[in-house]
Parts: sequence; structure tokens; C-alpha cells
Amino acid sequence: MARRFLKMHGLGNDFVVIDARHDPLSLTAAQARAIGDRRTGVGFDQLIVLERDAGADVFMRILNPDGSESGACGNATRCVASLVAGGLGKDDLTIRTISGLLGATVHANGLVTVDMGPARLGWQDIPLSREEDTLHLSAAAGPLADAVGVNMGNPHAVFFVPDAEAVDLPTHGPVLEHHPLFPQRCNIEVATVLSPTLVRMRVWERGAGITRACGSGACAVGVAAIRRGLAERALTVRLDGGDLHIAWREDGHVLMTGPVATSFEGVLHPSLLDERVPA
Amino acid sequence: MARRFLKMHGLGNDFVVIDARHDPLSLTAAQARAIGDRRTGVGFDQLIVLERDAGADVFMRILNPDGSESGACGNATRCVASLVAGGLGKDDLTIRTISGLLGATVHANGLVTVDMGPARLGWQDIPLSREEDTLHLSAAAGPLADAVGVNMGNPHAVFFVPDAEAVDLPTHGPVLEHHPLFPQRCNIEVATVLSPTLVRMRVWERGAGITRACGSGACAVGVAAIRRGLAERALTVRLDGGDLHIAWREDGHVLMTGPVATSFEGVLHPSLLDERVPA
Repeated sequence: MARRFLKMHGLGNDFVVIDARHDPLSLTAAQARAIGDRRTGVGFDQLIVLERDAGADVFMRILNPDGSESGACGNATRCVASLVAGGLGKDDLTIRTISGLLGATVHANGLVTVDMGPARLGWQDIPLSREEDTLHLSAAAGPLADAVGVNMGNPHAVFFVPDAEAVDLPTHGPVLEHHPLFPQRCNIEVATVLSPTLVRMRVWERGAGITRACGSGACAVGVAAIRRGLAERALTVRLDGGDLHIAWREDGHVLMTGPVATSFEGVLHPSLLDERVPA
Repeated sequence: MARRFLKMHGLGNDFVVIDARHDPLSLTAAQARAIGDRRTGVGFDQLIVLERDAGADVFMRILNPDGSESGACGNATRCVASLVAGGLGKDDLTIRTISGLLGATVHANGLVTVDMGPARLGWQDIPLSREEDTLHLSAAAGPLADAVGVNMGNPHAVFFVPDAEAVDLPTHGPVLEHHPLFPQRCNIEVATVLSPTLVRMRVWERGAGITRACGSGACAVGVAAIRRGLAERALTVRLDGGDLHIAWREDGHVLMTGPVATSFEGVLHPSLLDERVPA
């Protein structure tokens, strides 16, 4: 059976999106891996399958290139919101994932805001392996020290540095990701405050290494800068892939606003959905 | 303007193929680079644009991911032959590239044979920087020595070793690629003869590093094994991406037979063909 899909991205974080709301699709891990091969399949950072949901505008299933399922992806949520809003003829949407319900708003200029939920700041929330002030973590490597801990559904440690471009992230990132302070490992951000409303950041993602854009990482950087008194409660975070706008609401929720793009639409060759896909 | 394309591959060597025979297309280097980005575009090892040709069944233009033009690609030629044969209703085709005319045959089992032209074996043909017997080249690195030189439209040095899997190609490949014996640099193959009709090879491609499959490299390995008396004049060459069948005809031409596959068909988003594509 041929399957239509869209290839979309948010700041270079790229997705294959299959709309299965009217034609249900159950993918095996092997099929997801076959579609995920960038030379013999399509290739993606995450594969998104849209399904119908009784209590939300859409359910989004998020699969990783290894075929495992993921709970959340802010950049993908923006893409899905943009895609679904047009069809439903409304701008404010609720999107369900296996982790819960997300709110999203599609703006007239094409940018999309996603409610990323509350930033959690307790040491057990990050989580840390022992009680510490999450405004001043003890984990350090090379010139990186005194991080701010933030949980945005996943753990982050944000290191403020004079020049984020100059940090040797391939060396220090993996050391900090696996530091004993972080029992679930940690996403590592290095950030330079350029003004109270503009912060430059680079990210070492847990399990993925350096990436062009990490939505939850941008939220963590915004929250960390605000907690330290370095930024306003609404600011621009500049990643390698582009800019995201972060606002930390008084109720603790973090709103992330950014662009979405469609690269192409396609039809999968039936062999990619064949159960007998070679490894 | 939306543009249809096919994503195809031969042993994992992958191509975006745009059929512009009826709707001419002139791509700038910036557009090719935008389409070539595996996250924000489509991604390819080579971008193939099919054009009409007065003296051949089709003209294939070959663009690299950096937007430059290439003269030949055996794996892409198989894909193009398979694609064009169906539409023309014939199995034997002539395909023109900027380097010349190629013959190709599509077999009933789906495999495609391409005439890769003559193997050239003189020291000036490889080319080498000084006169040497191309059956025993002087270039060496680590355990690799005594290579056979073959030019298949591009330079190759084939090193026969007891176990190709065990060779540290990331270390020795770049040293040999840039060895002073090779004024145009060189593609480096390590090969192990498993039987007179089966040779295992791995390749370090000039300018690309280790790849899953290199059609001209498989031809060079076949010719080198035959020249050394290690193989029959028709043999299977086993690459990381799969098997190619190589035959060295008495007239010097090398015939390469192998599979083709289509991953998906798609329609490029107009923004990817926009002249104002960001870098």
C-alpha cells in the first residue's frame, strides 16, 4: 500500500509526517528504521504519525530513527499544529502525545506557538542524584561550571559562558551528559547572554550529540537566564538552526514560538512498508 | 513551480532524479545545495536531471551535493536506465553524460547492466606522477602495499589483503588518497579474494571517504583481480551495500550489473527552487 507523507522541519530538526487520521497505520520498529535510513529510505530525526483522538484535535505518535517511541518534541509539535490547523480551519489546537495534552497556536505570520508545559526546578525533578541548589549545580568539565538545572519534560543543564561559539562541546558535552550528578543523563546547553532579550546557545543533546536546534533546550536556556536575572521573561534564543522565541508565563508554563517549513511531499514506495525489510 | 522527483538508490548510493525531458529545468548550484540538505531539503549523493538528447535515449546531468557537476556515476546510470526503459518500452538504451555515451541493458529480473567503458591501465592513464608498472604500485601506508592501478574514468588503487574487514581504512585511506604518486588523488580499495568469482571489497572514495558502494571502484577491483590472475573474467564484487557483478570484455570494456531501488516519489516544495534559498 502506498502511503503519502510530508517532509517538514523546524529549524532543521526534520520530520516525516504521515497523516493516518483517515487511514490507520501501525508501524513496526523495523518499518520505522527502514523509512528513517537517509539513503535507502527517507530519513528523519523523528517520524510523526497523526491519529484521531476523542479529546484533542489530533494525537501525534513520535517515533525515533531506532524505532522506539518518544514522548515529546517541541519542533515537531509546531509542524503538526501548522499542518492540522489548515485542515480544521482553526488557529488554536490541542495536540495529544503519549506524555499528555499540548496547546498550540498558529499565527497569521506562519509562526507557531507551543505550550511546552511547566518548567520544573526541584532537584528531584531534574533529576539530580543528590540534593543541590538547581541554580548552581556542582557538575563541571573543562571551563564549564556553575550550571542551572531545568526539567522541560527532559533534564537540562545550562552553562552561561562568555562565548558559546568558543566552547569545545564535542569534548565537554559527553562528559557532562554522563556526569554522576545526572542519573538519567542530561542535555547540555552553553549560552551567552547578548542582551536581556537575546541569548545565543549551542546544545549537546542526550543520546544525539550536537544538533542544530533543540526546542526543549531553548526553553531551558530561557528559563535559566530568567532565573539568574539575566533576561526578561520573554526573549529570543538563537540556535545554530535559527531563532526561537521563549516566554515564561507566571503560571510556570513555557511558551515556545518559531517557524515551520515543508521541504517536500511524497509517496513511500511499498517496499519501505514491507515487513520483510532487510536490516 | 512544483517539481516531481524520484528518490532512487543503487546499493545505498542515493539519488534524487528529476525528469526534465518534457519540462526543462536549469538548476543553480545554490538550488542543488538546498535540495541536497538531508534535513531541510531532500538529500542525495548525486542529483540527476534527465534531459532530451538528439543522439541518445536520454541525457543525464549529474550534480554533486556542493552544486558542482560530475561526469559519471555507474550506480546512477543503472537507476536512470531502469527509469527510462519502462517509458520507452525497450531494454537496451544509450545514455549520454557530459563525459560521453554509455550503453545500458535492463534485464527481466530488474537488474541493470551498464557499460562502464574501457579500463585504462597505462601509468599516464591512472594518472601517476612518475612511470611505474601499474600492476605493482609503490604507494604504501601501514600494512597496505603493492596496489594495482586502474582508471575507470577516475583513478583507483586496489590493495589485495588477507582480510578487508580488518583494514583501518579511516586511517590509511586519506594517506593513500593524497599520496604524491597520485597527482589527481586516488580512490582507494582494499580487496580480499574469497574465490575466483567472489571478491570482498571496501572503498575509501576520493573526496567522500568510506561509502557503502562505489560502482567504478567495484569495476577497478574486478579488473585488478583479473590482471593479477586471481579471478575469472566475470565475477561478483561484494561491497558494504551489496553485490555488483563485473565482467571485463575482451575489447577492454567493463560491464557492471546490479540492482536499483526506488525509495519514494515526491514533489519539491516551491521554496526549495527559490533563488533566494538561504545558505
